[in-house]
Amino acid sequence: MSEFEKVTTGLGEECGVFGAYDMDGGDVAPSVYYGLFALQHRGQESCGIAVTDTYGERKVHSKKGLGLVNEVFDEESLQELKGNLGVGHVRYSTAGASRAENAMPLVINYVKGILAIAHNGNLTNAIELRHELEYTGAIFQTTIDSEVIAYHIARERLNVEKAEDAVKNAMKKIQGAYALVVSSPRKMIGARDPFGLKPLCIGKRDNTYFLASESCAIAAVGGEFVRDVEPGEIVSFTKHGMKSDKTMAIDPKKQARCIFEYIYFARMDSVIDDVNVYHARIVAGKALAESYPVDADLVVGVPDSGLVAAKGYSEQSGIPYGMAFHKNSYVGRTFIKPKQSQRESSVKIKLNVIEEVVKGKRIVMVDDSIVRGTTCANIIKMLKKAGAKEVHVRISSPPFLHPCYFGTDVPSNEQLIAHSHTTEQIREMIGADSLGYMEVDKLKNMVGDLAYCDACFTGNYPMEVPGRDVSLAFE
Amino acid sequence: MSEFEKVTTGLGEECGVFGAYDMDGGDVAPSVYYGLFALQHRGQESCGIAVTDTYGERKVHSKKGLGLVNEVFDEESLQELKGNLGVGHVRYSTAGASRAENAMPLVINYVKGILAIAHNGNLTNAIELRHELEYTGAIFQTTIDSEVIAYHIARERLNVEKAEDAVKNAMKKIQGAYALVVSSPRKMIGARDPFGLKPLCIGKRDNTYFLASESCAIAAVGGEFVRDVEPGEIVSFTKHGMKSDKTMAIDPKKQARCIFEYIYFARMDSVIDDVNVYHARIVAGKALAESYPVDADLVVGVPDSGLVAAKGYSEQSGIPYGMAFHKNSYVGRTFIKPKQSQRESSVKIKLNVIEEVVKGKRIVMVDDSIVRGTTCANIIKMLKKAGAKEVHVRISSPPFLHPCYFGTDVPSNEQLIAHSHTTEQIREMIGADSLGYMEVDKLKNMVGDLAYCDACFTGNYPMEVPGRDVSLAFE
Amino acid sequence: MSEFEKVTTGLGEECGVFGAYDMDGGDVAPSVYYGLFALQHRGQESCGIAVTDTYGERKVHSKKGLGLVNEVFDEESLQELKGNLGVGHVRYSTAGASRAENAMPLVINYVKGILAIAHNGNLTNAIELRHELEYTGAIFQTTIDSEVIAYHIARERLNVEKAEDAVKNAMKKIQGAYALVVSSPRKMIGARDPFGLKPLCIGKRDNTYFLASESCAIAAVGGEFVRDVEPGEIVSFTKHGMKSDKTMAIDPKKQARCIFEYIYFARMDSVIDDVNVYHARIVAGKALAESYPVDADLVVGVPDSGLVAAKGYSEQSGIPYGMAFHKNSYVGRTFIKPKQSQRESSVKIKLNVIEEVVKGKRIVMVDDSIVRGTTCANIIKMLKKAGAKEVHVRISSPPFLHPCYFGTDVPSNEQLIAHSHTTEQIREMIGADSLGYMEVDKLKNMVGDLAYCDACFTGNYPMEVPGRDVSLAFE
Amino acid sequence: MSEFEKVTTGLGEECGVFGAYDMDGGDVAPSVYYGLFALQHRGQESCGIAVTDTYGERKVHSKKGLGLVNEVFDEESLQELKGNLGVGHVRYSTAGASRAENAMPLVINYVKGILAIAHNGNLTNAIELRHELEYTGAIFQTTIDSEVIAYHIARERLNVEKAEDAVKNAMKKIQGAYALVVSSPRKMIGARDPFGLKPLCIGKRDNTYFLASESCAIAAVGGEFVRDVEPGEIVSFTKHGMKSDKTMAIDPKKQARCIFEYIYFARMDSVIDDVNVYHARIVAGKALAESYPVDADLVVGVPDSGLVAAKGYSEQSGIPYGMAFHKNSYVGRTFIKPKQSQRESSVKIKLNVIEEVVKGKRIVMVDDSIVRGTTCANIIKMLKKAGAKEVHVRISSPPFLHPCYFGTDVPSNEQLIAHSHTTEQIREMIGADSLGYMEVDKLKNMVGDLAYCDACFTGNYPMEVPGRDVSLAFE
Repeated sequence: MSEFEKVTTGLGEECGVFGAYDMDGGDVAPSVYYGLFALQHRGQESCGIAVTDTYGERKVHSKKGLGLVNEVFDEESLQELKGNLGVGHVRYSTAGASRAENAMPLVINYVKGILAIAHNGNLTNAIELRHELEYTGAIFQTTIDSEVIAYHIARERLNVEKAEDAVKNAMKKIQGAYALVVSSPRKMIGARDPFGLKPLCIGKRDNTYFLASESCAIAAVGGEFVRDVEPGEIVSFTKHGMKSDKTMAIDPKKQARCIFEYIYFARMDSVIDDVNVYHARIVAGKALAESYPVDADLVVGVPDSGLVAAKGYSEQSGIPYGMAFHKNSYVGRTFIKPKQSQRESSVKIKLNVIEEVVKGKRIVMVDDSIVRGTTCANIIKMLKKAGAKEVHVRISSPPFLHPCYFGTDVPSNEQLIAHSHTTEQIREMIGADSLGYMEVDKLKNMVGDLAYCDACFTGNYPMEVPGRDVSLAFE
Repeated sequence: MSEFEKVTTGLGEECGVFGAYDMDGGDVAPSVYYGLFALQHRGQESCGIAVTDTYGERKVHSKKGLGLVNEVFDEESLQELKGNLGVGHVRYSTAGASRAENAMPLVINYVKGILAIAHNGNLTNAIELRHELEYTGAIFQTTIDSEVIAYHIARERLNVEKAEDAVKNAMKKIQGAYALVVSSPRKMIGARDPFGLKPLCIGKRDNTYFLASESCAIAAVGGEFVRDVEPGEIVSFTKHGMKSDKTMAIDPKKQARCIFEYIYFARMDSVIDDVNVYHARIVAGKALAESYPVDADLVVGVPDSGLVAAKGYSEQSGIPYGMAFHKNSYVGRTFIKPKQSQRESSVKIKLNVIEEVVKGKRIVMVDDSIVRGTTCANIIKMLKKAGAKEVHVRISSPPFLHPCYFGTDVPSNEQLIAHSHTTEQIREMIGADSLGYMEVDKLKNMVGDLAYCDACFTGNYPMEVPGRDVSLAFE
Repeated sequence: MSEFEKVTTGLGEECGVFGAYDMDGGDVAPSVYYGLFALQHRGQESCGIAVTDTYGERKVHSKKGLGLVNEVFDEESLQELKGNLGVGHVRYSTAGASRAENAMPLVINYVKGILAIAHNGNLTNAIELRHELEYTGAIFQTTIDSEVIAYHIARERLNVEKAEDAVKNAMKKIQGAYALVVSSPRKMIGARDPFGLKPLCIGKRDNTYFLASESCAIAAVGGEFVRDVEPGEIVSFTKHGMKSDKTMAIDPKKQARCIFEYIYFARMDSVIDDVNVYHARIVAGKALAESYPVDADLVVGVPDSGLVAAKGYSEQSGIPYGMAFHKNSYVGRTFIKPKQSQRESSVKIKLNVIEEVVKGKRIVMVDDSIVRGTTCANIIKMLKKAGAKEVHVRISSPPFLHPCYFGTDVPSNEQLIAHSHTTEQIREMIGADSLGYMEVDKLKNMVGDLAYCDACFTGNYPMEVPGRDVSLAFE
Repeated sequence: MSEFEKVTTGLGEECGVFGAYDMDGGDVAPSVYYGLFALQHRGQESCGIAVTDTYGERKVHSKKGLGLVNEVFDEESLQELKGNLGVGHVRYSTAGASRAENAMPLVINYVKGILAIAHNGNLTNAIELRHELEYTGAIFQTTIDSEVIAYHIARERLNVEKAEDAVKNAMKKIQGAYALVVSSPRKMIGARDPFGLKPLCIGKRDNTYFLASESCAIAAVGGEFVRDVEPGEIVSFTKHGMKSDKTMAIDPKKQARCIFEYIYFARMDSVIDDVNVYHARIVAGKALAESYPVDADLVVGVPDSGLVAAKGYSEQSGIPYGMAFHKNSYVGRTFIKPKQSQRESSVKIKLNVIEEVVKGKRIVMVDDSIVRGTTCANIIKMLKKAGAKEVHVRISSPPFLHPCYFGTDVPSNEQLIAHSHTTEQIREMIGADSLGYMEVDKLKNMVGDLAYCDACFTGNYPMEVPGRDVSLAFE
């Protein structure tokens, strides 16, 4: 799947989270802004920042809105976000319509003051929990799982001394995928679900601690990467430094990191759970070269996500690596997509083939996935029109066959070409000279010894899941 | 107080509410828009509309924002608000900063579906109720009382069959002033606090029922005025028509309508609890003429609120009525106020004296109140500069001496000139030739037999009130 | 014509102009802002301010836009408009579509530097002049007459020593109605057409001179009224003070002030050419009472323009004056008008009858004009529904029968009810019990000895005019 | 110079132009939109589209604004741009402040109707021409050269039969660099200066002709590339097809294409004057490898402009090519740049090194230019921090030493590091292990036999130029 396909098909990650806590009391909103900016690839629908001053009045100032980080915030609004503890969020929406009230972080008043919460992931028992809460008098103002989590933290907080213990008790009730960054009035708290489905890591710059979905955001703010939050771990930051609680951790063999973070979601310059994303993609490309060798002149990747795997294929196969496409990066939220009736096509507008590179060549084209197949078909057509003699497609993930309940927005079965066609049929439909998907049992090479989740390819879910799609239950 | 003073001193009403329910299933958003437009004088900070389709999916579509009704809504947004049951709100903010998340209606998901609530008034036990709710695990996302009310309705709903009974049970817990318009998934419900502090009335146009803070809004949408909701009454509207429940009503003698609605808040073309606002102001003007006769040539009112009382003074005294001022009505939310350092003054920009009218005349100038006195002093100065020989000031309300706990934003004592000065001192400070305030015991003439609240003048509160200002407790 | 009719029928004034020149070098943009704000009634479509610093670089900073003064400017933009010489403009558009590029002031670079020009009025030979200019190589970027004037000033400037002489020479070529405020790099220049069709006056505050379409704008900025610019006069302001050139003046008897300024356009608190607008309207009302006496209980005016004439009628007839209407002043540029299909009507939403006042009464209702008649009919219907026993309509202007070529946007004949109906027919159509229009020969009472233009009523144009409507020639 | 440096230093191209003419009368605005979108890299400050209907009223509808193509236009505004002849423009501003009135296309009324003009380039005799025009009574409303060109076309139009001849006569007066797209009421006209300094090409899709600054825009709208407009050629398009006039052409040896188009400005998938931009950059990279060989492990390019030259270096040297950087493409017009005082740096936020790729390696880093040197120094520091053992910098252009008078915004000499430092000094300042600039006499290899302009490197201007910087003359 190239990102061009993503726009139309809606395969996407839910969110990115970022937190900053300056033990010296300095303002952190600019760092949160740049951190979110580095995580923008994880969500372009809405974003928000909530800050509090742990040394002052502990009020929360927040701003949220629809659009990219640089559309929602300007210098004035950043300056108004005073405080040394900040939580930020970028959101990718699964629902068709954008919903302003679902933007995060969620800011609530509860018994102990004000709490802001940013959340990446999806709870599998959200419906049950919402009903349970409603039957004890809860009201909901959004349709996001964060509100369910906030309720549980608020209720547990009545019984425990420390905010982080309230988070822990809440974790005992909620099931599914989550990476959380929470600001309680005086603390920054981070937590990751016991399966480790969603990534979260820790950084530091002088006396400021950071939490981020990906290490690239730590680098963007000039911080040093400290370590990943471990699956099931709760970390908390006060003026006395960092504390860790791993009592919710499970057997590492049962952990289930989302393999698609490595294949597609994460930025290639991030490192997640000690696995370098760039390296993982090189490995994927090499595996494809081993599984599906072909006599060709050039290996090319579909930007941006297919580029590294193409490099890996090239290294393994010895076939030269080339740049076949120019990508137009000025596509923003408000870009007007061509209508079917127009002569221009979405793909052509955003992607152009460099004829000079492909003319007369036999091409191996690497992409990360195929969803509906139409975009892939269009790109192959463009390559052939530019003079490519053959186009051999290699996909760095196995075919999608099962729904994801953890926050990845996989289209429904009817839209998934792999659901109802054989690989040979797909090859023919997209007009490729050959087609090879990553083999399921080679995924493990990408991440070494790490336990991971490949349920969307295999149906082997790491936990019990609802039998039906729940993403639109509250829309 | 002229409305020009209002801008700077912040004496203001909290809100206006409007509801519409079309039994035939037609869209009501346009009617709610025009209804709110007619109530714009009750709140200019923010507004919102929430609609639901009682014959369809019963989802709620809402739009809220900072600004006037005609700034927040455009044709496109009105069209997207599909549904035959709508709730609307205009808000006047007491806090310095505008808070977008406090805009109403509040829309919540609860055990029985989606509920929208619009509320005018102020609870006197809001802090206690919020703490109580927090100690049972509630979380708050706004600082408005409506959220407290919503929680109570939601919790009571678990124990009763009907939404209106949940409202009734909630009314047993909440204390203070409120006029409520609620859309439960299938019903429109209206309720008024037992003291009747805030107004609410019923209208009808064909098969559409309306609820509105003031009857002028019923007229604006082409409806017929049906009757006022009685103090303590709950009315509910379904496809089967209107039902009423008056079990929460109290002894009519203990009722306590806000007298300031008649003096200033309400539009002069409204009728509240069978008392015509225009008539009440005429009566007030006549009472002033009886109490404070003076030998003069012309009676003028400060626009807009002083005009009718001036007419009354003229009728009683026989002194001719005249138009002394031109008011510039183009002042919007974003108007740039002159700085102290500038030569232009706020009063001069918004109000100009018609020299032709006042030159050489002895003037009786009627206004509805004096808050800080500076605006009044400026207007008197302008009249004298234009050639008025004498300016006799008559105020159609008694001096403010006590805080209001029911939603009227009276400035703190230090800002109230009447709090620390005698009438004679005030007269001298504002440069008037004479000054007379409405006598407290003549207020009753304005409203006939109706029981009313004059606590801001007398300190006689109709119920127990908190000892301190609570308006900023949650900001 | 009430102003409610104006919205739909498009009878309107073209513009208001304002200029400020601070001989001490202080910034004038705030004064221009408040001056335009006072002239907002003369044009609500677009506005603009251009300033220059006569003691500095003499660059021009300008900002223009669609909307009200307080919508187009904010504090930041005012602060960026640095300079001691400023020209401002508010525009009412005759064309259906708003055209951002037609907003004024027009700012041009010409041989002597930068010139800003604000213009109220309409040239009768604009088409000929444009063609003439085009045939000598001129290009036009707008459709406004100001560009034609600017070209002539620029071309004449090549032949004369002083900018004011270039203005004078240009005045020899242009024909029609104009009040001009021009900033040449070092001077503020004002000019008024020899007929005096459009008003322009001079004010002063300390060392700052003002030019304004109406005296109310001088008052708004705290200035003293100095005098009117005379018809045909050119005034110029430098650091050495004011100079006047009256060589373009014509015989005062041939002057032709627009009588409709006194009837409708001007603010009632303005004084134009020594005639008090308020007074003129009182006189008009009295004349109506003399011409069309009637046995009635109450005289009311349609806000805002009919109020003063109603007062005059009351004074002359002895019938009490009353306030019958509440006008909703929150109607802004973006107000959504009800569609024909909706139950709400435009009139009802903006105007409401105070039943208490009119019930059981025989009413004399005074308005300034009738254009299509539909609004008038609606208001009469509202009065009768509120219980008025009779409604006698008195119009403070004669019937419109002829086009205006000087900038007043009178609808085409087909839309003018008076064009094809007798007074009796109109009376019946609007449902009045009687109807009387101001008599043409009584207009002169309003303005004393002043020579005026009443061509729209009589067809007696003060100069040769084109035979056809030219307003859309360049759209 | 990486594009990150560009943001701060202001080295940039003036504009991109696009035109479309549908002989069948269909609407072309969507095609112009997508064409401009493909040219967005040539100007991000403002953009605009003007369309006319050659078969209808021949009015011009236009929309212009500050911002990216997808910020200025939405579906509604595109739909309002009805017409089969359209001209579009993207602008990069040389002046500090953005000027809305300078946005193009310029739309003018002149003797023959309405003309829209889009222009890329810079006139060298603009000041003289403006003065000359002013002395014959011209007025200017913008500071762009297009207005000078428009005046000349308008004046010449009086003497000739055809619009294209007016363009030709205008070309005899104007000097400098220009690619023009003009819509006269019935024709689309394109013209390129005789030196060919700025590119312009022709495309076709069915019965629609296109003109575009670069061929990539033809591809984006699904058109076929026809050919380049030749230097000095005028092409015109009517319903009868295309006509060409080459009488203004000069000796091909005297032509002077801007070599920097190939090095940096143009998109790598464009072909200009039969030279493939991708190929030219490969050649440049190879030349660098020949001139400055080095023993290293990896060749990397600074995105996006350095990538292809790096590929060329790799191919020539045999050193493997790698991706060392991740670029964040979400930087928009409103991105908040870090202040000096903040810990985050602009470079870090937009560019991140992939440690995995560079660790322990000796790196050859290829970029297209060095302006001030600070960005380059920062990138080298990042590479070394990520573990690079050596960083050898290769620049695919010679050092900037002379001003450009043709529209490229080269910073002033004081800001150019090459102006006052030797290559060895620069190497030390940026912290490189070696540094090599493209040799001037190897530039010709990039473009084969084409005559080109390298004046910014050599001072050999193809025509007489003003002795001083003229870019701000009219600001």
